Formats: sequence, C-alpha cells, structure tokens
Amino acid sequence: MEGVDHLAFERNKAQFDVDAMKIVWAGSSHALEVSDRMSRLVASDPAFRKDNRAMLGRKELFKNTLRKAAYALKRIIELRLSEEEASMLRSFVDEPAFTDLHWGMFVPAIKGQGTEEQLKKWLPLAQKMQIIGCYAQTELGHGSNVQGLETTVTFDPKTDEFVIHSPTLTSSKWWPGGLGKISTHAVVYGRLITDGQDHGVHGFIVQLRSLDDHLPLPGITVGDIGMKFGNGAYNTMDNGVLRFDHVRIPRDQMLMRVSRVTREGKYVQSNVPRQLVYGTMVYVRQTIVSDASTALSRAVCIATRYSAVRRQFGATGGNPESQVIDYKTQQARLFPLLASAYAFRFVGEWLKWLYTDVMTRLQANDFSTLPEAHACTAGLKSLTTSATSDGIEECRKLCGGHGYLCSSGLPELFAVYVPTCTYEGDNIVLLLQVARHLMKTISQLGSGKKPVGTVAYMGRVEQLMESRSDVQKAEDWLNPSAVLGAFEARAARKSVACAKNLSKFSNPEEGFLELSNDLVEAARAHCQLIVVSKFIDKLQQDIPGKGVKQLLEVLCSIYALFHLHKHLGDFLSTGCITSKQGSLANDQLRSLYSQVRPNAIGLVDAFNYTDHYLSSILGRYDGNVYPKLYEEAWKDPLNDSVIPDGFQEYIRPMLKQQLRNARL
Amino acid sequence: MEGVDHLAFERNKAQFDVDAMKIVWAGSSHALEVSDRMSRLVASDPAFRKDNRAMLGRKELFKNTLRKAAYALKRIIELRLSEEEASMLRSFVDEPAFTDLHWGMFVPAIKGQGTEEQLKKWLPLAQKMQIIGCYAQTELGHGSNVQGLETTVTFDPKTDEFVIHSPTLTSSKWWPGGLGKISTHAVVYGRLITDGQDHGVHGFIVQLRSLDDHLPLPGITVGDIGMKFGNGAYNTMDNGVLRFDHVRIPRDQMLMRVSRVTREGKYVQSNVPRQLVYGTMVYVRQTIVSDASTALSRAVCIATRYSAVRRQFGATGGNPESQVIDYKTQQARLFPLLASAYAFRFVGEWLKWLYTDVMTRLQANDFSTLPEAHACTAGLKSLTTSATSDGIEECRKLCGGHGYLCSSGLPELFAVYVPTCTYEGDNIVLLLQVARHLMKTISQLGSGKKPVGTVAYMGRVEQLMESRSDVQKAEDWLNPSAVLGAFEARAARKSVACAKNLSKFSNPEEGFLELSNDLVEAARAHCQLIVVSKFIDKLQQDIPGKGVKQLLEVLCSIYALFHLHKHLGDFLSTGCITSKQGSLANDQLRSLYSQVRPNAIGLVDAFNYTDHYLSSILGRYDGNVYPKLYEEAWKDPLNDSVIPDGFQEYIRPMLKQQLRNARL
Ligand SMILES: Cc1cc2nc3c(=O)[nH]c(=O)nc-3n(C[C@H](O)[C@H](O)[C@H](O)COP(=O)(O)OP(=O)(O)OC[C@H]3O[C@@H](n4cnc5c(N)ncnc54)[C@H](O)[C@@H]3O)c2cc1C
Ligand SMILES: Cc1cc2nc3c(=O)[nH]c(=O)nc-3n(C[C@H](O)[C@H](O)[C@H](O)COP(=O)(O)OP(=O)(O)OC[C@H]3O[C@@H](n4cnc5c(N)ncnc54)[C@H](O)[C@@H]3O)c2cc1C
Ligand SMILES: [Ca+2]
Repeated sequence: MEGVDHLAFERNKAQFDVDAMKIVWAGSSHALEVSDRMSRLVASDPAFRKDNRAMLGRKELFKNTLRKAAYALKRIIELRLSEEEASMLRSFVDEPAFTDLHWGMFVPAIKGQGTEEQLKKWLPLAQKMQIIGCYAQTELGHGSNVQGLETTVTFDPKTDEFVIHSPTLTSSKWWPGGLGKISTHAVVYGRLITDGQDHGVHGFIVQLRSLDDHLPLPGITVGDIGMKFGNGAYNTMDNGVLRFDHVRIPRDQMLMRVSRVTREGKYVQSNVPRQLVYGTMVYVRQTIVSDASTALSRAVCIATRYSAVRRQFGATGGNPESQVIDYKTQQARLFPLLASAYAFRFVGEWLKWLYTDVMTRLQANDFSTLPEAHACTAGLKSLTTSATSDGIEECRKLCGGHGYLCSSGLPELFAVYVPTCTYEGDNIVLLLQVARHLMKTISQLGSGKKPVGTVAYMGRVEQLMESRSDVQKAEDWLNPSAVLGAFEARAARKSVACAKNLSKFSNPEEGFLELSNDLVEAARAHCQLIVVSKFIDKLQQDIPGKGVKQLLEVLCSIYALFHLHKHLGDFLSTGCITSKQGSLANDQLRSLYSQVRPNAIGLVDAFNYTDHYLSSILGRYDGNVYPKLYEEAWKDPLNDSVIPDGFQEYIRPMLKQQLRNARL
Repeated sequence: MEGVDHLAFERNKAQFDVDAMKIVWAGSSHALEVSDRMSRLVASDPAFRKDNRAMLGRKELFKNTLRKAAYALKRIIELRLSEEEASMLRSFVDEPAFTDLHWGMFVPAIKGQGTEEQLKKWLPLAQKMQIIGCYAQTELGHGSNVQGLETTVTFDPKTDEFVIHSPTLTSSKWWPGGLGKISTHAVVYGRLITDGQDHGVHGFIVQLRSLDDHLPLPGITVGDIGMKFGNGAYNTMDNGVLRFDHVRIPRDQMLMRVSRVTREGKYVQSNVPRQLVYGTMVYVRQTIVSDASTALSRAVCIATRYSAVRRQFGATGGNPESQVIDYKTQQARLFPLLASAYAFRFVGEWLKWLYTDVMTRLQANDFSTLPEAHACTAGLKSLTTSATSDGIEECRKLCGGHGYLCSSGLPELFAVYVPTCTYEGDNIVLLLQVARHLMKTISQLGSGKKPVGTVAYMGRVEQLMESRSDVQKAEDWLNPSAVLGAFEARAARKSVACAKNLSKFSNPEEGFLELSNDLVEAARAHCQLIVVSKFIDKLQQDIPGKGVKQLLEVLCSIYALFHLHKHLGDFLSTGCITSKQGSLANDQLRSLYSQVRPNAIGLVDAFNYTDHYLSSILGRYDGNVYPKLYEEAWKDPLNDSVIPDGFQEYIRPMLKQQLRNARL
C-alpha cells in the first residue's frame, strides 16, 4: 500500500482552497515558497535524519547534533542561502543546538548592548562563527530575579581589567545553552563593582575556551548540567555550568552602549536611552509566540490526521468502526487547539508588526508605547506557551495508547517544548508584570492619560462596566462585536475589581502580593482578549481563496467561544453575559465543530509540514499508520536479539526456581 | 553542610503532630510500620539504586530492570516476607517491570475467569514464577473497543484444540507489558469461533515461549514495540507485539469459569454470573486511585520542599530573598494539589471498602450495587489520574528551570505516570460511561427506583433543583454542609439539564453522541462531588493527634473551594450559588492557604517518603539542594571528557573556517 493516500477521502471533503490557506498560514506566497523549499531540502537529505533520536545515548546524540549543525552551515555556504533561507533551514533541522543561542541570544545581545567599536570587532567573528557564543545570565541560585545575580565583575584600575568571580556555589552560572561543551565565548552578566561600589548587573563578553585546543581558560570551570526531560528533546543541547575564579578580561569587553567604565574606573551613563534594551526583549518574545503556533500546529496536525485514521466503536452491519474524529468529545478537545494554532499565528504576525513599530518610534525617541508593548509581549508569551504546552499533551492523549510511543513524535515535541513556559520569563512572573501594567493603566485613567494599544479599551471602562450583551440566539455569537464586547467587558471588570480591592490596602505592595492570584486571572483575561481581537482584526483584511476566510471565521469563533465556555465563571460573575447567553454560546460551539469537521484534514495540510519535520508515524501525510508502526517497532535495540541481555543471569534462575543460589 | 537539616526551621513551624498524620496517610499504624520498614529496606540497598536511569540506553536499562526484579524476589524469599510486605517492597523498588503485569493482571485474570481445575493447575506455577505471564488484550487496531478485537480462536473438534490466529496486521497484539521479551505465557483475548459461529471475545491461556530456551514457540512472532515517553520511565517495561500464525492450544486453556466449549464444540454458559468479572475491574481501578494519590503526593512533596528552599526576589536590607512558597500564586498552584493528594488518598481508602462490600454482595448473589460501583470506580479512575498527570507537570513548573532537569525527578514521574490516563480505560471513554449511568439513574427516578450509593443524592433531585446556598460570609464556606449542598446541586442540575436536552432527540443514541461534551462535564461534576463527600465523611471519623483533624479540615475546604472557583461557571450558570457567594469562596480560599503555609513541610513529611523513593534532588528531605545539584551535573556522560566527541570533526572546522573541505 506504499504510495497510496489513505486520507484522500478526507482531503476530498475540504470545502476550501487549501493552497490559498497555505499562503495565509505562511504569511505570504514568498514565505510559503521559501519555507516549502527549505523544508524539502532538509527532508530529502538523509544527513538530517532525526527519527532515531530516542534511541541514542547522550554522547552519541550530542555528537550527532554537532554533525548536523556543521553540515547545515556547510550547506548554507555551498548553496549561498540568504539569511532568511538559512534561518528557515535551521528551523527545519529541528534540533536544539548551541547555534540557537549563538544566533538567537549572543549575537543579539552584542548588537543591542555593544558600542559601535564593539560591533565592529565582535560581530564579524560571530557571524563567520570564528567564535561561538552563548548567553550566561542565570545562576544556580538566581533565575527570575536577574537583579539578584551574585557573580561579581570588579574593575582593577591597576591593570585596566575586570576580574570576574563566582563568590559562592549559588553564583555558578547554570543553564546557559551551548555553554557546557561548545561555546568559546559568552555574554556574562554580573554585578559591576568599581572602587567598592556596586552598580548592579551588566553584561560582559568573556572568552571561555582556547581557540587553539578548546580547553577552558585558566580560572574557568565549565561543564554540562546533565540530562533533561525526555528522549532526544533538549538533550541535544549542552546547557552548562560555569564558575569563575578571578578571571581577568580587558576593560573594553564590558558591553558599553548604555553605560561604561572609564580608564580611571569611573562609572558613566551614555546618552543612549536604557529603554532601547527592551526592544530586544520584545523581539525575542515575539519569536516565541510565532514558535508557539508552530509547535501547537505540529501536535494538532498529528492528532487530527491520526483521529481520521483511527476507528473505534460504532461498527454496524459490516461497516467499519467510526473514525474517532467523528466523536464530539474528540472534536471538542481537538478543534479548539486547531483554532488556537491559527489564533497564535495571527497574533504572532501582529507582534512582528508591533516590534517594527516600537523600534521605529524608539529611533525617533518616542518611548510612549514601550511599556504597553512590553506588557503585551510578556503576556502573550505567557499565554501562548502555556496553552501550547498543555495542548501538545492533550494531542498526545487524543491519540490514545499509540501517542505514548516515541514514534508518535508527541512525547519529544512536549519534552522539548515545555521549558518555553519557564525561560525568557517564568509564565506566572510575566502575568504579574502584565497585571502591574493593568493596575497602573487604571490608576492613571483619572489623570486623563489615554490608554493606548492593547489597553485602549480601558479608556471605555465606564461604558464597559455597564454594558450588557445583546445576544439572543446562538448565531448572534458569530458576530465579532458580540464576542469582542463580552471579552472586553470581562477583562475590564476583572481589572477594575482588582484595582478596587487593592485600594483597600494601605500598603499597595502588600496588597499586590495578597491579591496576586486575582491579578493573574485579570491579566489572563486581558491577554485572551488580545488574541481574540487580533484574530478578528485579521479577518477584516482581504483574504483570497475559496472558502478560506469563511473557515477562518469559524476558527475565530471557536477560539473565542471555547474560552468563553471554559471561563464562564468570569463572564457570569462579572455580569457580562447571562447564563442563557452562556448556554447559547455552547450551542453555537457544537455547530461550529461540525463545520470544521469536513475541513479538518485540509486545515492541518495547510501547515505544509513534511513528514520529516513532523517525525510522527501517527501524523504521516498518507495516513499509512499501522504498517509503519509495526515496521518501526522492530528497530528498537531490544529487538536486536530474540533473547534479551540479562535473561540468562536473571530470568532463567527465576523460572528454574534457582534464585536462592543466584549471584545477582 | 552534610548532615545539616536545611529545612529544620520549616519543620519547627508545624502546628500539628506529623507522626499522627503519617498514620492517617498510611491508613493505620500497622500499614505505616510495614511501609516504613520496606521503603528503608529498599533505600538502603545499593542494588536498588535508580538515580542513573536517565543515562542508560534501552538495553542496559532493561537488563538492569531484570536484575532488580530477580533481586527483589530473592530478597522476598530470603527475608520470608509476607504478601503485604512483598507487594510494598515491589512498589518501593519503583520501576515498571514485567512482574507488574504478572502479579497485577495475569494472575488476577486467571483467578477471576478460571475454573477450579484451572486455578489448581496454573496458579501454583504463576505464584512460584515457574511461568511468567502477561495480559494480551489490546491490538494494533483495537484498544478501547474490546469487542472489536480481531484475533480469532477457532475450535478444531478433530484435535480438541483451539487455533489462534492473527488474520490482519491490525489484529497484532500491541502494548501488553512484559510481552515483548520476558513472558512465557499470556492470557490472550480473541473471538471465540465454534462451528463457524462467532461467540465474541473470550480469554485463553497461551504459552508463548519455550520454558527450555525461551525461544518463541512455532507460529509466534513476538517483540518489543519500541521506546516510549521519557528517560527511564516506562522504558524499563517490554511492552510487546505478538502475532499468531495458526497456533494451537489445548481446549482446556480457555478460561472457562463463565462459559466453556465442550469436547463436541458446543458453546455453553456456566451458572456463574457474568457480573463476577466486573469485580476484578473494580479492584484494579481502586488500586489506580490509590496510586494516583501516591504519584501526586510525590510530586507535591518535591515541589513543596523546593519551594521552601528556593528564594527569589524580595530581598530587603540585608535579608535574604523571599522563599517562593510565600508567594500567593505559588500557594494557589501548589496547595490545591497538596489537598488533592490527601483527597485522593481518602477516596481510594473508601474504594477499598467499596470493593469488599461489592464482593461480599456478589457472593450472596446481590448484584444491585454493581452498576453504581462500576460507574463510580470508572469515574474516579478518570478524575484522579487526569488530575494527577496535570498536577505532576504543574509541580515541575513550580520548580522553575531546575524542574526540567532529570535530577529533579519530576520529568520521569510525569512520563511514567501519564499513560494511566489511557490504560484501564481511556479517561474520556470512562466519563461517558459514568454519564450513561447518570442518565439511566435519572430516567428511572420516576419509576420509584431509589438511587443508591454515590448517586443517592439524585433521589433528592427535586429539592436540589430548588435549593439556594445560604452562605453569607466567607467563613460560612467552611461549613461542610454548605460545600456539599453546592456540589450536589451543581452535579444534579448538570445531569438534569443533560437529561432534558437528551429527551429532545427522537433517537437517544444520536442525542448522546451529539451532547457528549455536556455529558462529560456532568460526569466530572458528579465525580468531584464524590471526592468532596468522601473527604467530608472521613472527617466525621475520630482522628487523633494534635491539630491533625483541623488541618485535614483545612485541606478538605481547599479541595472543595478550589474546584468551586475553577468551575465557577457551572455553579453560577446552574444558579446554585450567587456571584457574591462565589467571591466569598475565593476570599476564604486565600485565608486557607495562609493556614496551610506554616504546615506545608510537615504535611509532605507525613507522606514518609525516603529520598531514594523520591529520587529528586529538589525534594531532598534535608533541603540541601544546590551542592547536590552541582555534584550531580558532573556525572553526565558528556562530562567524561573536557573536549566532547565530535569537536574535532565538526566544530574545529567551523571555527577554523574550513567547513567547505570538511567531510561531514
Ligand atoms: C531549557 C532551558 C534553557 C535555558 N537557557 C538559558 C540560557 O541560555 N541562558 C540563561 O541565562 N538562562 C537560561 N535558562 C534559565 C531560565 O532563564 C530560568 O530558568 C528562568 O528565568 C526561570 O527562572 P528560575 O529557574 O530561577 O525559576 P524561579 O524563579 O526559581 O521559579 C520557581 C517558582 O517560583 C515562582 N516565582 C518566582 N518569582 C516569583 C514572584 N516574584 N512572584 C510569584 N512567583 C514567583 C515561579 O513562578 C516558579 O513557580 C534556561 C532554562 C531552561 C529550562
Ligand atoms: C503504557 C501502556 C501500557 C499498556 N499495557 C497494556 C497491557 O498490559 N495489556 C493490554 O492489553 N493493553 C495494554 N495497553 C493498551 C491500553 O489498554 C489501550 O491503549 C487503552 O485501552 C486505550 O485504547 P486505545 O489506545 O485504543 O485508544 P483509542 O480508543 O484509540 O483512543 C483514541 C482517542 O479516541 C477517543 N475515543 C475512543 N473511543 C471513543 C468513544 N466511544 N467516544 C469518544 N471518544 C472515543 C479517545 O478518547 C481518545 O481520545 C497499554 C497501553 C499503554 C499506553
Ligand atoms: Ca536515553
């Protein structure tokens, strides 16, 4: 049955133009063309094989990653790929590696915090990979609270050098990717001390290993921090530990764009505004949101295809059993995740725009939108990564027992994804930041300061406190303004309630700590509103292709009404809607699921993922699941021999009742 | 700092008698004594070491498991352990192995479905482990729907044998634990066919491998199905694939307690009632609920201790940073899980009683309580395992970045636990069964049939449809009857609403499919009510020990009010409580968290877990986290050499700009 498309009958059901949807998903025809070409390039090259990752020991796995990283770079050079193509290719290689940190953190940190001279010196080295860098911020004892880092960087005016030191065990750098075994350099964060005075945390370029023999330089202890969650997964990365014993670096390796230390040891602020640094954070978090849509869509693609292949119960009169995708419970778990993948795609797209907008304003010394942009990227990072982590595991459960096999691809997708909820800001800590921004916005309402961007709706707070939904029948919930009205009212009312309760505390900080759960909930409501409203905005655009826009409207409604149902308590307790209206939303949801059903396979085909990228037997494009699962099983090392290692020593004595005398 | 108790200051805060709580958790002083002794026996024996599991390749890992299983049995024999002690010891070895299926499924299946003669023949062999058995039900294409199994077992009257055959690829047995490499025998389920007639699925004892050389017998293809989720975890188990090519077994290896085939090939029912078989299911699911409380409590113990060790933010005037356990968001995520662990413990205890009760009745031919017992164990299995899976991952996130390290113990705990949501009944399929029972109960209300057991409250449905909560201030929610009233009203109203909507369908089966999401929600509400009410029942007992009962009351309130807040939409939309009352519950919750806080470490100490069992650096009893994390890191194979394998081939050419000519 090789070559047969077992899902053809499902593909024939699609009521929309899948190719047009591919363009919408990719962002443009150009983006689709590039990603299509790059993903096929990777998929067709056996050097990028990754289906054996789960079986490799740590060393073998890691060596293999080094090979792939080098080979990918070689191909990039040989094929003279553009930066866009190269970064696409790297992402389709789909294996965490030191290069992620080199390109994603080390280079941007230098770009963002280095002076012109520093850029001139370091960027070419980094760009050609004559040096390999990582980002060494977190310590064994200090993660979320960056201001609490213990590493000291003391200026020695005698030699015009900084002395970097790890004064305690907890000050050991811990977690930086690429640090453990590979990086020659790092941007290290530590407390700058001049003349006995502590100026807080600053960044420094530090060489870690010899460029001749790769051995750690004197005073440096460095290694890998050990195995992480899952098989394959993030174990391809050498997250590292690093200790400094009075290591000296030249003064000019402090990243001095914003502040610097003079030859005499004076600490001086430059006239470059500090806020510029936040631009990088907006950038990084925006990519995390896009990546969330990618990770979630992969899991959804696998679960959707397998749900169409899998049949269970309901056989009647010679007919086969029902496809599990036809069960309403399966739909109610799967389709909201499908809708979320699209929703996160569009909010990610919008964040890309926001980043450009912020940067343009920053160049023009307009910092006004920065706090709002900062809060909203923090919140969306938190919302999308938490939802994606949970969503991947739900997709695995949707595949029943077979989802538990590594060959389903889902265990590794989960294991490699979940730390996204923790790094670049713990998701709860981020929501608390959003909440602070919301409370500040509310407190300034009286002063006549008009809230902008994603908090603009707060400007209509009086109206939102009074508004009542006018939904009267299920279909009324298809109206974007009905949805938006309910989500705005809920978000506004939750925030206002928090602000009211906060005002009862004489010490606002104490109040904030005491009410932090309610604040987190308010922040979540605000972030869900952003996702809903950006999806709705997207649908105001002209979207070509038969049935494409209609289906996106269905997905948008599912995203919104699913969350309305899930958080019904919020909507009801704040009086935004009535029980009756809530129940109508639920009715509407059922009918929306039916509209998605025939289009489900088409909607996941539109992601345009290769079988290589998905790396899942359950998610195979051709649906040929069972023969391939069966074939795959025999590749396990345990099947190398019929009688397993250990049988003679341990099992035979058991069966032969000779355990008493056995040497075990 | 070896030997210092870094958590002593926390232990001193406890306001209750931790030793008395240990007895409550264990179930009795006797149970505590045995589990304490067995867990120390295992912990103190280096043969049972398990902290290196994440680093082992599949073969090594598996061989190690065989060794431990044999060694455990040897110790059991040497020490003449009782059955109770032996089973405790096995559970503290804490490594999935073929023995789990042998003792947990193979032996019970024979006991439950075998005739007296069959027991006499097979049980002694199994009990001495002269044969090793597994439970081969699931097929590649058939899991949840057992009636859809394809394996055929055809009686051949000529030779007085059954011929077992796998007619299709999808009929391959797939998943049975212990099958892949070890079992000599299996209870195999297949369609019984006599004289061309299909009698549906029955069980048969089948020998798979030679007792001489362990080779598969003629006609049998058998192997391991490959790697599963996570490191270590369930990969110590040889879940297997099995195909039959016309394999013959004697007629007397059909399990014939309930029905049998005569020498002439006649299919005959015995006078033993079929329902007896359900007893086994109640038994197995009851153990799963107890195991849920164990798994969740392990995760909670780790996260609680680490949350007391971990400090982040809030340093003032020379004082250290705040312990993260003092953050209200941390408490609001952690303490409901702590409460759930206790709640599941008590509902598990009650299920043990229920099982005995059901069995006693069955002996006396009283089948009246069986449907209810069956529904309630199905529902509680579903509820507790889903909550535990999610709870373990939440505990991992509560540990920030360090929770992602294998040495935290949490990744493996998650990976090994999650299939519990799928096996012994997919959790959604089970809730649908509960829903059927609820709908049936309601439909019979009119007929005067009085609902019993956990659905007894349905007998008061008219009153429950009318009732209004009389809570007026936050503390009123501490009243068990206030809580119970709200949960009963919510569960009853959700079920009644479903029944009403179902009655609108002319075809009830169609209605059931269409409304299955609402039905699942109703079932969930019912199951939460059971947990709440059994916790409340427990508190009616006499519970000695200073402060013990008081704290359990606090945990019970947390469990209930947390769920009330989480599912506020249910309570409000069905009109059981008002928004104001919902908000009072939330206020009360805050104050309950504060009451738990000083007792948190004591409450997890009461689980009495050894450091060996927890296998978590973050969860160490002495709180000595950082030095141990640091030590552990260096054990990773990647740290065997300073320069990693692959550096010369792949990284040096990169740094030296010689990739073009490199052979990769
Ligand atoms: C896979 C991975 C890769 C990484 N890569 C890098 C890297 O390349 N470079 C680098 O420098 N770092 C890296 N890190 C570290 C990462 O940035 C930190 O783990 C992250 O910032 C979270 O900090 P933490 O681990 O200290 O968590 P903690 O802050 O210790 O969190 C523990 C718990 O405390 C809670 N908490 C903390 N503060 C508060 C508060 N104020 N209020 C309420 N609750 C609070 C959190 O919500 C959480 O539940 C990586 C981490 C991982 C897991
Ligand atoms: C680790 C592990 C160990 C196991 N050990 C054994 C063993 O020792 N022996 C053995 O025989 N088996 C074993 N199994 C198999 C296990 O019993 C099955 O995987 C389980 O019964 C679930 O069935 P399934 O895999 O067919 O899931 P499926 O039924 O295929 O589930 C797929 C999806 O369909 C949905 N679905 C299915 N039916 C319906 C319906 N009627 N209505 C709505 N939704 C539906 C489910 O909710 C799920 O989302 C094991 C499995 C695992 C993962
Ligand atoms: Ca491994």
